[in-house]
Amino acid sequence: MIRAATRLGTRPVGNYGKFIRLQSTFEIPKTQKGVIFYESGGELHYKDVPVPKPKPNEILINIKYSGVCHTDLHAWKGDWPLDTKLPLIGGHEGAGVVVAKGSHVNNFEIGDLAGIKWLNSSCMTCDLCETGYESNCAKADLSGYTHDGSFQQYATADAVQAAQIPKGTDLAQVAPILCAGVTVYKALKTSNARPGQWVTVSGATGGLGSLAVQYAKAMGLRVVGIDGGPGKEQLFKSLGGEVFVDFTKSKNTAEEIIEATQGGPHAVINVAVSEAAISMSTQYVRPTGTVVLVGLPAHAYVKSEVFSHVVKSISIKGSYVGNRADTREAIDFFSRGLVKSPITVVGLSELPKVYDLMEKGAILGRYVVDTYK
Amino acid sequence: MIRAATRLGTRPVGNYGKFIRLQSTFEIPKTQKGVIFYESGGELHYKDVPVPKPKPNEILINIKYSGVCHTDLHAWKGDWPLDTKLPLIGGHEGAGVVVAKGSHVNNFEIGDLAGIKWLNSSCMTCDLCETGYESNCAKADLSGYTHDGSFQQYATADAVQAAQIPKGTDLAQVAPILCAGVTVYKALKTSNARPGQWVTVSGATGGLGSLAVQYAKAMGLRVVGIDGGPGKEQLFKSLGGEVFVDFTKSKNTAEEIIEATQGGPHAVINVAVSEAAISMSTQYVRPTGTVVLVGLPAHAYVKSEVFSHVVKSISIKGSYVGNRADTREAIDFFSRGLVKSPITVVGLSELPKVYDLMEKGAILGRYVVDTYK
Amino acid sequence: MIRAATRLGTRPVGNYGKFIRLQSTFEIPKTQKGVIFYESGGELHYKDVPVPKPKPNEILINIKYSGVCHTDLHAWKGDWPLDTKLPLIGGHEGAGVVVAKGSHVNNFEIGDLAGIKWLNSSCMTCDLCETGYESNCAKADLSGYTHDGSFQQYATADAVQAAQIPKGTDLAQVAPILCAGVTVYKALKTSNARPGQWVTVSGATGGLGSLAVQYAKAMGLRVVGIDGGPGKEQLFKSLGGEVFVDFTKSKNTAEEIIEATQGGPHAVINVAVSEAAISMSTQYVRPTGTVVLVGLPAHAYVKSEVFSHVVKSISIKGSYVGNRADTREAIDFFSRGLVKSPITVVGLSELPKVYDLMEKGAILGRYVVDTYK
Amino acid sequence: MIRAATRLGTRPVGNYGKFIRLQSTFEIPKTQKGVIFYESGGELHYKDVPVPKPKPNEILINIKYSGVCHTDLHAWKGDWPLDTKLPLIGGHEGAGVVVAKGSHVNNFEIGDLAGIKWLNSSCMTCDLCETGYESNCAKADLSGYTHDGSFQQYATADAVQAAQIPKGTDLAQVAPILCAGVTVYKALKTSNARPGQWVTVSGATGGLGSLAVQYAKAMGLRVVGIDGGPGKEQLFKSLGGEVFVDFTKSKNTAEEIIEATQGGPHAVINVAVSEAAISMSTQYVRPTGTVVLVGLPAHAYVKSEVFSHVVKSISIKGSYVGNRADTREAIDFFSRGLVKSPITVVGLSELPKVYDLMEKGAILGRYVVDTYK
Repeated sequence: MIRAATRLGTRPVGNYGKFIRLQSTFEIPKTQKGVIFYESGGELHYKDVPVPKPKPNEILINIKYSGVCHTDLHAWKGDWPLDTKLPLIGGHEGAGVVVAKGSHVNNFEIGDLAGIKWLNSSCMTCDLCETGYESNCAKADLSGYTHDGSFQQYATADAVQAAQIPKGTDLAQVAPILCAGVTVYKALKTSNARPGQWVTVSGATGGLGSLAVQYAKAMGLRVVGIDGGPGKEQLFKSLGGEVFVDFTKSKNTAEEIIEATQGGPHAVINVAVSEAAISMSTQYVRPTGTVVLVGLPAHAYVKSEVFSHVVKSISIKGSYVGNRADTREAIDFFSRGLVKSPITVVGLSELPKVYDLMEKGAILGRYVVDTYK
Repeated sequence: MIRAATRLGTRPVGNYGKFIRLQSTFEIPKTQKGVIFYESGGELHYKDVPVPKPKPNEILINIKYSGVCHTDLHAWKGDWPLDTKLPLIGGHEGAGVVVAKGSHVNNFEIGDLAGIKWLNSSCMTCDLCETGYESNCAKADLSGYTHDGSFQQYATADAVQAAQIPKGTDLAQVAPILCAGVTVYKALKTSNARPGQWVTVSGATGGLGSLAVQYAKAMGLRVVGIDGGPGKEQLFKSLGGEVFVDFTKSKNTAEEIIEATQGGPHAVINVAVSEAAISMSTQYVRPTGTVVLVGLPAHAYVKSEVFSHVVKSISIKGSYVGNRADTREAIDFFSRGLVKSPITVVGLSELPKVYDLMEKGAILGRYVVDTYK
Repeated sequence: MIRAATRLGTRPVGNYGKFIRLQSTFEIPKTQKGVIFYESGGELHYKDVPVPKPKPNEILINIKYSGVCHTDLHAWKGDWPLDTKLPLIGGHEGAGVVVAKGSHVNNFEIGDLAGIKWLNSSCMTCDLCETGYESNCAKADLSGYTHDGSFQQYATADAVQAAQIPKGTDLAQVAPILCAGVTVYKALKTSNARPGQWVTVSGATGGLGSLAVQYAKAMGLRVVGIDGGPGKEQLFKSLGGEVFVDFTKSKNTAEEIIEATQGGPHAVINVAVSEAAISMSTQYVRPTGTVVLVGLPAHAYVKSEVFSHVVKSISIKGSYVGNRADTREAIDFFSRGLVKSPITVVGLSELPKVYDLMEKGAILGRYVVDTYK
Repeated sequence: MIRAATRLGTRPVGNYGKFIRLQSTFEIPKTQKGVIFYESGGELHYKDVPVPKPKPNEILINIKYSGVCHTDLHAWKGDWPLDTKLPLIGGHEGAGVVVAKGSHVNNFEIGDLAGIKWLNSSCMTCDLCETGYESNCAKADLSGYTHDGSFQQYATADAVQAAQIPKGTDLAQVAPILCAGVTVYKALKTSNARPGQWVTVSGATGGLGSLAVQYAKAMGLRVVGIDGGPGKEQLFKSLGGEVFVDFTKSKNTAEEIIEATQGGPHAVINVAVSEAAISMSTQYVRPTGTVVLVGLPAHAYVKSEVFSHVVKSISIKGSYVGNRADTREAIDFFSRGLVKSPITVVGLSELPKVYDLMEKGAILGRYVVDTYK
């Protein structure tokens, strides 16, 4: 049985202050606990692994908590068209404390709070990195995918890319912000929707969706949520949503959305991974509006009818994680209390069980693992 | 046999000056020649029809020349998901002289040169019209589709939407600019490609394509053209294109384009109406680049693989004609001699033969009809 | 003595419904009450004047309430470098009911609510009008300046420019939104500040400022307010402001702002008309930030030191009223209850007294005149 | 006497290929020639100085040529409100060959061509660096100002910021592109002027101006140049300029520009350092247009009249050097032959004489020093 504690909105800072003070004399151990696998889809071992050493440009973070993301499942199964390193320690939503740093690191001090993001490092010198698209860099090194991630007690990250987390932040709650939060925030920016305009979140009460609704609200947007099942509308409205469409009950989801928004939403954030839902969003989006693709269903296609695509002059944009600025901003919204993480905390040792639940689609909100349990 | 005269780059202003001077005493006739049909796909009658009367907000233009566009074929056949008026006089690339105007018209004088565009009028007061998207207005009135167009000697247009054509302009040559030119120019603006960046034009030597290449060049862009067949590369390069890919010879069109542009073009203008070509463009476009849809194949879909769409963060944007500002600017590039129309002039009475050639795909460049022949 | 009733946040719709129903049989009178002057700075006559007749493109609005703006004072005194018509009926924040319309008007029905804005009409066909800058049109016709305005019971406006006011709106409260509200909303858009960023409002509790604070808050911005005097901080915070700087007490206003915003605000909205305050804003704005000029002090200059302007890469932008889209959006924020007008209602006959108070700087919030008193 | 060779448009690659091949066995010397000064405005010593050692993130460049910029004069005199390091080796337009690199450098190989830019390094982790404004970083380290620059044979630069120069580039010609070229290119981007629009370059035939004219032309802009004196118009037009205004002859420069551009230019690039010229540009710029400040006159102010600034809705923007992407793009325009450097090459030992000429305003085009002479 998974021992879980759901925390929403509280901020127990814990005794990290004491821990931090100990750092100068604290001996970084040689080995640590982590979850590692040796082949795609192979057994997940919770075991002692070596503590990595930071390169000149890296920091070593003592990870306290790490969020668990659907991407971790894909990384483990190896079903995306992009190879992982093997063996691999997954995880890319790790929050902790800087305990060591390379000679070339100037922006972190020992004791600072820091986060492991999906993008562990990039080249910083290609045309994409130069223009703030470092996530799209051809040399991107990815936490929990091509670089051992946050499902261990000590992990490394390029200091330029590591997330800067303000002092006093609840490390369990902030963990999912580092990927899920940044991703939906970036998607909302990518949508170009302006304050006062309508945005539809497809999959509005899931892990990504519930964050998307909160960010949208904080950005002055009006939110239409699509989801299905009992209790979803109430949850959606408690997050700041305005109009809810239950696709299990609606006779015509697209028409209902168009009517509620007097012509269709200015933007759609597709966090749901349903191919049909994504393609439908090209139909109900407002003329000149933007459909944003965020979720990553394997082997799926978005289909859009050319005639109406042109005549309505819509856009379909892909949005992939977020860059350093997006990360800073997404964390800032969280720090100001405008966005809360709907987390369930379990021990790192129970990660295989979380994967199991995830595969069954039995997860509500976001699981976070405590690396010391 | 069609009597045709191809003119490219010459600018015979003709004796319109004399004509204009006569306007004040010139009697506008009651009837005129036009090409009309009474049911979708029905017979095209070249016959005497009444001269329309301008409303308070309209001008009456004595059309000298009109371009013939694929859209005219769709309007006649009625195979688009949008009803036409019936009976209908087609045409939406008409260039001529203002011979009368309504009481509320302030921006045209009798004798000014003016053009009939696809958008004959719009409401000017909905949220789309207010933000420069008047072509997307739900109340858009369309020349040669829901409003009798330029395949007649006298046609009406809302003075706010009618194109302002500088004195001294060659009316035969400017005709195709009014729709084809504006459309590709707008598509290039929609692509957000900046001077110095790469743009691919798919269908680079056709009627729209050859204009797109010239506009792109004039906008400081570097152009990759895709087309097939003998003589095409030479034509493409004479228009200012830089890299030509002959899809009938290339082993891998996408790879060839990616290599020539060191990572893919920043934008793709899909004027070709091939569904396969459109979907392929989502694969070779540069990460963070933009695929623009312009051509309107009936019943076609663009398909894009979600995973790479997100990871490459590309956009697929529809671009539909152009607004008043786009029209002004597109005409200005033409007036400055930076863009030339590859036209073949025939008599209006020969329009049915042009439609026939068009259906057979036997047209190179653009046909323009002389309404007095 | 001025009989005044301050209303904030209440929405008495009144008995206009009944009034509207009467319109069809209602006889539009030949004369009406208005305030007119015959020379710049001359006597203000409250008297019977003829009811104007709408042109084909105009609507005739039965004005119920009109806001009083500093611009009205300038129009009367004639101290701006732009001539007014004479004699003149001022006013450009008029809210009322459509009672007649020209033959070319399609977007208003008799009985609709409509508003008189500063921009009464523009040419709609110059390069500025075409790109949404109709306020900057060289042929702009200005309500209460070059076109008789809203200080009368019946006024005309171009139907394209007249504000569309939703049914059920409190006409007294919405009046100041038509100029003051639109102006500050546009200024905030012009600033390019994004949700989560800091904006400073200089003159934060005045008529424009208190609206600016509310719009900024609704747009997801964090607001620093500058103003001086007792009770101002409390008012500012009740409007949603976050940090208040009392310039009468601060030792160094610029430094205090920079510190509170960790580097300076991303944008500054200068509604205060102090030349010194405006120039100071170029010093405390964040590097790459934007200083927006809104207020119109006569004969004033903004001065910016070139070296730091370049090295900090700041912008100084002028923002002038708002266009049709800005108006629609500003009214929408008001209609959703996110912005409230701090108004004091008096009779139209008391307008000269309001001007007197205005000249003395003795006005807090915004005066609105009831045209039937 | 200064031995000078003016080269414009030729591209002698020299024998660097041979040199590069020698690098692997080439011994980097302990000392080298450089020009150093020990106090602001003090004597300029051409002497042996130590060769610097690259840090883990730096490359060591064997400088072949360096441009001389007005900023170098300010750095020497110390008359800007920003302290230099002392003693100082100036220069920030150095082009050469990578001869050594730190352990953390991945984007340069020994033998690659590389350039020293004004921005030697920045923190890469503040909100400005994160959004492409690294030149505005509070921790910016500046070549020839706070970091020894390119007036020596061996100089260091952060590999992330060092310019990537394509193989085969003429190193003498490219030198001024590294600051002057990037600066004017960035200013043109900052202006938001689009292809087909008008841009005025104030100081059109000077070192910066002549580059600005060429970049503007290559970007599809139409250029109005302001300058004075014989031969200037001819030079301006040979660079691609369209309309020339000789301020020494014009009765009203502002009016002449407004007339030639039918309403004023959409943008103005102020490379001239005249305070009066800068302020005048706020008057003739087109409504909604942008005045860009680039030149850095000491102690100067731009003054703009608030009323017309607002009513015309203009912008005054500072543009400071350029970022990594701007540098890559500016070099690309040069490499494609669209922009040529008007250089005069002299020996490094003659640098004091160049400073002397510069102070007298006796320089036309750009001086470049050969570090081996």
